[in-house]
Amino acid sequence: MTMKKINIGILGLGTVGAAVAELIKKNSKTIAQKTGVQISLKKGCDIRKVRIPYPTTRNPYEIINDPEISVVVEAIGGVNPAKKYVLDSIRAGKHVVTTNKELMALHMEEILSTAARMGVSVLFEGAVGGGIPILSALRDNLAANKISEVYGIVNGTTNYILSKMSRKGWEFPEALKAAQKKGYAEANPKLDVEGYDASYKAVILAAVAFGAKVDWQKVYFEGISRITQEDIRYAEEIGYVIKLLAIAKKVGGQIEVRVHPTLVPKDHPLSFIPGPMNAIYVRGDAVGELMFYGQGAGGMATASAVIADILSIQKSNPEIESLEKGKLRPMEEIESRYYIRLTAPDRHGVLAGISRAFAEQKVSIAAVVQKETKGKTAAIVIIIHQAKEANLRRAVAKLKKLSVVKEVNNVIRVGL
Amino acid sequence: MTMKKINIGILGLGTVGAAVAELIKKNSKTIAQKTGVQISLKKGCDIRKVRIPYPTTRNPYEIINDPEISVVVEAIGGVNPAKKYVLDSIRAGKHVVTTNKELMALHMEEILSTAARMGVSVLFEGAVGGGIPILSALRDNLAANKISEVYGIVNGTTNYILSKMSRKGWEFPEALKAAQKKGYAEANPKLDVEGYDASYKAVILAAVAFGAKVDWQKVYFEGISRITQEDIRYAEEIGYVIKLLAIAKKVGGQIEVRVHPTLVPKDHPLSFIPGPMNAIYVRGDAVGELMFYGQGAGGMATASAVIADILSIQKSNPEIESLEKGKLRPMEEIESRYYIRLTAPDRHGVLAGISRAFAEQKVSIAAVVQKETKGKTAAIVIIIHQAKEANLRRAVAKLKKLSVVKEVNNVIRVGL
Repeated sequence: MTMKKINIGILGLGTVGAAVAELIKKNSKTIAQKTGVQISLKKGCDIRKVRIPYPTTRNPYEIINDPEISVVVEAIGGVNPAKKYVLDSIRAGKHVVTTNKELMALHMEEILSTAARMGVSVLFEGAVGGGIPILSALRDNLAANKISEVYGIVNGTTNYILSKMSRKGWEFPEALKAAQKKGYAEANPKLDVEGYDASYKAVILAAVAFGAKVDWQKVYFEGISRITQEDIRYAEEIGYVIKLLAIAKKVGGQIEVRVHPTLVPKDHPLSFIPGPMNAIYVRGDAVGELMFYGQGAGGMATASAVIADILSIQKSNPEIESLEKGKLRPMEEIESRYYIRLTAPDRHGVLAGISRAFAEQKVSIAAVVQKETKGKTAAIVIIIHQAKEANLRRAVAKLKKLSVVKEVNNVIRVGL
Repeated sequence: MTMKKINIGILGLGTVGAAVAELIKKNSKTIAQKTGVQISLKKGCDIRKVRIPYPTTRNPYEIINDPEISVVVEAIGGVNPAKKYVLDSIRAGKHVVTTNKELMALHMEEILSTAARMGVSVLFEGAVGGGIPILSALRDNLAANKISEVYGIVNGTTNYILSKMSRKGWEFPEALKAAQKKGYAEANPKLDVEGYDASYKAVILAAVAFGAKVDWQKVYFEGISRITQEDIRYAEEIGYVIKLLAIAKKVGGQIEVRVHPTLVPKDHPLSFIPGPMNAIYVRGDAVGELMFYGQGAGGMATASAVIADILSIQKSNPEIESLEKGKLRPMEEIESRYYIRLTAPDRHGVLAGISRAFAEQKVSIAAVVQKETKGKTAAIVIIIHQAKEANLRRAVAKLKKLSVVKEVNNVIRVGL
């Protein structure tokens, strides 16, 4: 067999970049045997001094302008300076493989259209779901399908925290500390726990599944920091587990993209996804429902995706990488079931008042559970039938003003 | 974008072949938009009269020898006459996409080497796991990995039957009837329930995961017809669910390929796989553990895989399709834990005799549970620690000869 050689350079030698170098060192023979392609790492770049078993530089342009390098791997993360380096690499005629979810979610169109003009490919499998081949499945394996939805657990940190809250009875701060100790959460955990990371991935999934340009600024996302042990327990009692889901759906001519905690039925496979793992569902009109499960992060898992991207570059077709403006469905128009937890004085007339607030908005109550009374107040959990978000929000606003309601503690969507 | 056109023909217009035609009719515009490839079905062939919205013929050579057709889809099933048509298509310079698991399991090497000589591709994603892109994942997305194992539920019929036995308390014949009523099992269910179907898929998974030629004749496989409600219940009591697993592993320089009922721990995701669904695990040294879940059969799901294969043909590299002779590990040498159910007279001395039979073979007992006594006999369930299959078999042979053992009712491997 004729062996084909690809020279690459890596920008950013953090967890992922260093793992790509390590994986090439470890498995390049295996890769060549399997695919007939010899991947050769010519140079890595980082502003810090990082030891990898290949030459390094602090100047990214030694890679970007190297005529022998055909693929630049961007593993810096964040928008600046990654965006500039990626665009400069493309303009220098290089293919780019990136794992940068923020960059791709915020600037996919500019990057892909520049790549299309230059006739090069930009692939980003590692940006969503670590080593899970979800983007490749959406793009290639499911090409015969009209995709109607993609949803799942795409952030391992929050899944670890929610799993611990659920299994150990911990409150959020305690579970977050455990995640930080395990190295699953950063010292500044905001990007994960407030849903930013999952929202970037949701935008990327929507773009690849639907060929749609989605404005991240307009995407509704909500993290898990307001979930309490009480919510976890009440959800459990009525047969649900709380998970942070990223959801991208086609509804009529519109696209729904959102990230929020969701009550998942206990018998749904997503409810079992443990610790820091990821699991992503896809529904296509021919294939039905598929689910992909695996490590959603980690250097080596992500490096596996990076190398798969490098190998598929010769096969990919940059012409098709154009996006149509997706008509984003406003959050107010989505429909869902809801879990509402509120605190009320433990006396007659409370339920009548609450019921009226919902009825006025044509929001119908599926179940009401009054929980143990603490002093003179009771915790009331209400499950709402499928309702429009706008109506639900109006009903909740009204609830907050009722004299018989002390506090609306939490509103969580009930899903699937 | 420049549109590329691929003319195809379909041999066999049963469930899958007709679904491919239907899916092309339904989604060819979507496919062209997404991929820039226009798939055009020129002709379908079946010996029966089948109505599809495209021209048909009863003569396969009108397709095989048509110079305008570049891809032949083989959806006849079985070895004869499918093998002849596939080889003749290859010799006529056509690429072939097949969903024929028996053909590929038994004759992969001859087919792939003929294809390599002719410089054409043979792809067979639809042969394993319906629309689940497992072969493509093993081949492309996980190319950077040394794969160490692939295992899972690859036969929906038996999974449906076992699920019903487990959830409804039915015995095997009753559950089989239900599967036949649902259309999940054929009138002659032997291929499914005796493990043939799963064994073909295990051989294909091993070939693609390890690049290994596996002699199907030497593969150990066992179906589910001997599983009784008692086994299901006792397994449940000690925390397990019985599933039919196909297993392909690399152990040292050898390859293990086997299919048999397995006790799966209740907290393992495979234990939750419901009804006729499939779920396949892969372990790679970089990516860790991945799981793929979906409909393992059905016309449209399989057609989704067929069309993905057609689309990827232009990208595939026939040179790499060569297999090395895999050194198959003899079943006697595998190691496993075991569940053994036996019937014995309800008197002293029974356990001593049984224990001795195991001890003589250096097989160590993890747990013994004596179940309710019926008349003068007791049901005894024994769990064996990790042991070599050969030793276990000798111990069981010895057990059968003991006067204190009335019958060895079942031996099931305990897995994962």
